[in-house]
Amino acid sequence: MAQMKPLILLTNDDSVNASGLKAAIEMLVPFGDLFVIAPDVPRSGASHALTVTTPITADKVEESPGMTVYSCTGTPTDCVKLAMSCLLPRQPDLMVSGINHGSNSSVSVIYSGTMGAAIEAAMLGMPSIGFSLCDHSQDADFSGAVKYGATIVQDVLANGMPKGIALNVNIPALPFDKIKGIQICRQNKGMWNEDFILKPDPVTGEKLYWLTGYYHNEETGAKGTDETALSNGYVSIVPTHFDLTAYEVIDEMKRFEKL
Amino acid sequence: MAQMKPLILLTNDDSVNASGLKAAIEMLVPFGDLFVIAPDVPRSGASHALTVTTPITADKVEESPGMTVYSCTGTPTDCVKLAMSCLLPRQPDLMVSGINHGSNSSVSVIYSGTMGAAIEAAMLGMPSIGFSLCDHSQDADFSGAVKYGATIVQDVLANGMPKGIALNVNIPALPFDKIKGIQICRQNKGMWNEDFILKPDPVTGEKLYWLTGYYHNEETGAKGTDETALSNGYVSIVPTHFDLTAYEVIDEMKRFEKL
Repeated sequence: MAQMKPLILLTNDDSVNASGLKAAIEMLVPFGDLFVIAPDVPRSGASHALTVTTPITADKVEESPGMTVYSCTGTPTDCVKLAMSCLLPRQPDLMVSGINHGSNSSVSVIYSGTMGAAIEAAMLGMPSIGFSLCDHSQDADFSGAVKYGATIVQDVLANGMPKGIALNVNIPALPFDKIKGIQICRQNKGMWNEDFILKPDPVTGEKLYWLTGYYHNEETGAKGTDETALSNGYVSIVPTHFDLTAYEVIDEMKRFEKL
Repeated sequence: MAQMKPLILLTNDDSVNASGLKAAIEMLVPFGDLFVIAPDVPRSGASHALTVTTPITADKVEESPGMTVYSCTGTPTDCVKLAMSCLLPRQPDLMVSGINHGSNSSVSVIYSGTMGAAIEAAMLGMPSIGFSLCDHSQDADFSGAVKYGATIVQDVLANGMPKGIALNVNIPALPFDKIKGIQICRQNKGMWNEDFILKPDPVTGEKLYWLTGYYHNEETGAKGTDETALSNGYVSIVPTHFDLTAYEVIDEMKRFEKL
């Protein structure tokens, strides 16, 4: 009996029509059969959100040998859950999310729908990788990301991953030959400072707040962080987990047990 | 000059109309001035999601001495960001999220809009507490939660919190005198197994998937976890942070640097 090809589950948060998803498909096709399920509309900033107050739908938009594509009305995390519960023919060997249009380094991992889906897959026990290119534009050049991504995917398929870990991979917006290599990193300390743009609704005059903001790096140039790796021209990989416990303050917090 | 009363920012994910929000107001009024901004509709499962593709609006629905209430079309995290950027008269002394209708213990913290907002406040540098009652019903009895919550709020206002930490407080669905006390805990290991209910749309016949599921505890009765504390009748407090780095596998992951 011929050995079954690996099955790779792919989603993103920029929608089923994003060029970053097409780049991910190009990256993954050599490695196995693809099962793609992605949001029907852009869901950037969806974090780990679920759709709980309404049902969701999923339409098969492509079926060819080694390739199935669904468009789903849910969030990226919904896409993973629905695929795993109802749509996949078997347990995937790998889950990939992306390639995202824009960085998900530092604290952006918290807001990211790309990483929400990747972490969900890790929670469900799959080796899982989220890829993001540090270029927001719709016509970004994904060629460097695809080449580095393929190398990482090949390694994970061959050697596996620790259970419960999702890789947060960010690729600098550089041509392939200008990228210096890969660095394993921790999440950089920093925050987004919001700066809402206030405009009246053109019809009703109601105040509309448009979210914008700028990233404040709290440790510029610090050793070992994803921001530093990226600014030095490296692909950054932060292994992420989903235990939010701040173990470092458990003892200090014991004061609440005395109340 | 009279000392200014503490200013407390309050949000939730069950909407500005939820009885859990009213319970939180009752809990907080003795401690300071309240600035409440909550989603106009239920946003359970919103996690740390942001609204990025559309603008949001915020309507003042109440203004009285010591109390301002806004209804906002955004997510719980949007509520915190908008309040901090555009609406608050000064930096709050404390941020409270909840009281949520339903548990946010174990991995539910990841999906929770209540905790998304609380963690956002911690990211913005505020002492921050998310409260959840382990009872989903709309007419849940919040009296035990209010009494324990007031004790915790009083302590945090007096003694502060480590920077970047949000408390994930879950209260068992028990009368106050049956609750045994408070335990500081780590996040229990477990997962949600999905079990979508598939129903045809009554009009179009399209397949509609409704998310449901059940929690699988991977370490029932384990010492020191929030699930164990709750099942033993204690209020659980997990201090949470927003660094998702899995430091425990950094060395193992260095293999990727050799690719």
